[in-house]
Amino acid sequence: MKKIIQIGMAGLGTVGGGTYAVLKRNSDELYARTGSRLEVKTVACRNVERARELVDASVEVTTDVMALAADPQIDIVVEVMGGIEPAKSLVLAAIAAGKHVVTANKALLAIHGNEIFTAAAQKGVVVAYEAAVAGGIPIIKTLREGLAANRIEWVVGIINGTSNFILTTMREKGLSFEQALSQAQQLGYAEADPTFDIEGVDAAHKITLLSALAFHTPVNFKAAYIEGISKLDAEDIGYAEEFGYRIKLLGITKRKQKGIELRVHPALVPKRRLVANVEGVMNAVVVKGDAVGTTLYHGRGAGAEPTASAVVADLVDIVRLMNGERADPAVSTIAPEADDSFWLPMSETVSSYYMRIGVVDKPGVLADVARIFADNDISIETMVQKETAPGEDSTEIVILTHSAVEGNVQQAVKAIEALQTVHGSVVVLRKEELC
Amino acid sequence: MKKIIQIGMAGLGTVGGGTYAVLKRNSDELYARTGSRLEVKTVACRNVERARELVDASVEVTTDVMALAADPQIDIVVEVMGGIEPAKSLVLAAIAAGKHVVTANKALLAIHGNEIFTAAAQKGVVVAYEAAVAGGIPIIKTLREGLAANRIEWVVGIINGTSNFILTTMREKGLSFEQALSQAQQLGYAEADPTFDIEGVDAAHKITLLSALAFHTPVNFKAAYIEGISKLDAEDIGYAEEFGYRIKLLGITKRKQKGIELRVHPALVPKRRLVANVEGVMNAVVVKGDAVGTTLYHGRGAGAEPTASAVVADLVDIVRLMNGERADPAVSTIAPEADDSFWLPMSETVSSYYMRIGVVDKPGVLADVARIFADNDISIETMVQKETAPGEDSTEIVILTHSAVEGNVQQAVKAIEALQTVHGSVVVLRKEELC
Repeated sequence: MKKIIQIGMAGLGTVGGGTYAVLKRNSDELYARTGSRLEVKTVACRNVERARELVDASVEVTTDVMALAADPQIDIVVEVMGGIEPAKSLVLAAIAAGKHVVTANKALLAIHGNEIFTAAAQKGVVVAYEAAVAGGIPIIKTLREGLAANRIEWVVGIINGTSNFILTTMREKGLSFEQALSQAQQLGYAEADPTFDIEGVDAAHKITLLSALAFHTPVNFKAAYIEGISKLDAEDIGYAEEFGYRIKLLGITKRKQKGIELRVHPALVPKRRLVANVEGVMNAVVVKGDAVGTTLYHGRGAGAEPTASAVVADLVDIVRLMNGERADPAVSTIAPEADDSFWLPMSETVSSYYMRIGVVDKPGVLADVARIFADNDISIETMVQKETAPGEDSTEIVILTHSAVEGNVQQAVKAIEALQTVHGSVVVLRKEELC
Repeated sequence: MKKIIQIGMAGLGTVGGGTYAVLKRNSDELYARTGSRLEVKTVACRNVERARELVDASVEVTTDVMALAADPQIDIVVEVMGGIEPAKSLVLAAIAAGKHVVTANKALLAIHGNEIFTAAAQKGVVVAYEAAVAGGIPIIKTLREGLAANRIEWVVGIINGTSNFILTTMREKGLSFEQALSQAQQLGYAEADPTFDIEGVDAAHKITLLSALAFHTPVNFKAAYIEGISKLDAEDIGYAEEFGYRIKLLGITKRKQKGIELRVHPALVPKRRLVANVEGVMNAVVVKGDAVGTTLYHGRGAGAEPTASAVVADLVDIVRLMNGERADPAVSTIAPEADDSFWLPMSETVSSYYMRIGVVDKPGVLADVARIFADNDISIETMVQKETAPGEDSTEIVILTHSAVEGNVQQAVKAIEALQTVHGSVVVLRKEELC
């Protein structure tokens, strides 16, 4: 068991900065999961002064990326600089030096993956690239391991957040492509030169990698048909809607009798499918396996911390391999002697609530109920009193609350049910906003 | 590298039968992924005659489950019989004999997990249970490995297909709970005694396991608050809908300052969330991590082959561990010398299509277009001719097609654009039905 794992990081931009932050913030959790401390020994990047501000004094900073491959103390090289060179030279040099590599570089792997993976296999080292596709969604691991029982039939993904944001904005606000692109640029979701994103090149890099993984083939970016969204007409988004479809830019790869389909283009997707409802910058990948059927994976496809989540997951996997981890009981032992105070009783949990109360239609009922809520520290979000039907003297009040403590809510319910003007039991349901 | 891995399987019901079928059907793929042949040596089950009909003659069949643990030739025991005993005795005996265990038994692990995981850790063997939660969705692996970089904040899941089917049916068809349950029973989605599913017990077993995994605690089923859907009133589903919510039976676990929340109950979920749109028997789990943000995993939570997908994925993981697999280059080498004929050119891909054609509003135009489609072997699903605006002499035809070959479609488009009665280019978009 290696107590300290030393990391050399090439690049300290969005992804590099995020990776450094996550490694530092969750250092204890990572130690518990691997048995080793993951330490960034050296950062290589262009702007040394900015790097010095971002990283601890103990971290070496250099402009010489190749130094990471040459340093015998570095165990793993993290390549998060992007672009083809010098990333390619660094990755090959690191492999030649017997180091494991983690990279987020989809363009590099889609174009030079065969050379890089072959070199890694010969050297017996790992090249991990979870961060190269769909950000923090663990789709590489899912295809490699989670669905390992399956013969994969197809993989289809919304794997470019910029174009998905543009399509969502076109549809929701009725904008033209140019207007939606300009909004995306203002919000920082599209670059000044957005070509790679809107013309489908970025999505093609990613679906090329997923295709190779799903069907056990070499990487073949040249085989990809690529059509972007820049010529898409808002009118067709409307027509598609009428027919029950949404238009999404999809990366598609399918195993057919005659060969493998590999393509990126805008496509109509039935609105009732979950993936049609993936909006804004979110990503989703749908995988069809012969045993599991269709499964979907959804999350943020870009951004500092979601991408860092994938980079660091790859690091954890590699460290576990390095430590020869064999048995790995499913439940960790951080708190093996936890007593029952560890788990909250239901009365101390926090939710927001829906309540339905049957009441006599008399002045003052609503005020009584509101008073009980206030006394129990429950804040009302929405309160609706249904109109009393002709000839009836009772009606219903439906209430949505803000977050409240379950015990307080139960107490309030008891008090409400004791009111003369209330009949029957109060219906109580909890709400989960999931954000 | 062990060339043949021998498996002892306890139980040959739905999951056992599915596992046997997947191991056999995808034997070559599994060999490519692990370097070993995965062979079922012995099946232990109650009905020997039925088992003999299902499995090959080379497989031993016995009624003595404990024999699996005693057989020194068996490397891995797969427990898919369910129930507490004799499953618990078998699992503990297998561990004591130094065998790895794969189980789909959520009740066993939720109630006796601490004892079982402790025994496994002491013996240095693996107890894998991907199949115990959410069927084929690789949620255990995702929490353990894919999101290993994160401090998990909460996990919320629709993890009981029976109750989700009932809730979907109540909402879509306006049925009462009893009516919807009876439909579920007729369709085989609910058992004759549905208590465990509808009262939230099954979901509580599963969220208990996810909670322990997410927060590194022992398993503590007793800490779970459990409320099912049998008392749910159809009226509240309607009110929830008015407010923009769907009602789902959720398993919920959250890490709070004061302790861990662990609960199962019906809850209102905002309709705009993806998870609110998970309908019928499908499962979905949403995980919030501090780095990755919110991710969602969706698929079939039950059934022979989806569950087998998870059992066999666990087997693959264990065999890789047994084989001491270290470097694992991401792209396999099944077809390293694939030539370009391996990938289909775009013209040979198959899609369904959306087309929009600007036409002069004259009799016979539609017939001309339809003729061209037929000549190119393209079958029309829907064809709509927009009404000509007053004072205009041109209009648009919008067409949805059934599956067709891209090359044929391109040829048809050329022919259509050459028609005197057609103006401008034909808009062509592809459709993906994703089923």
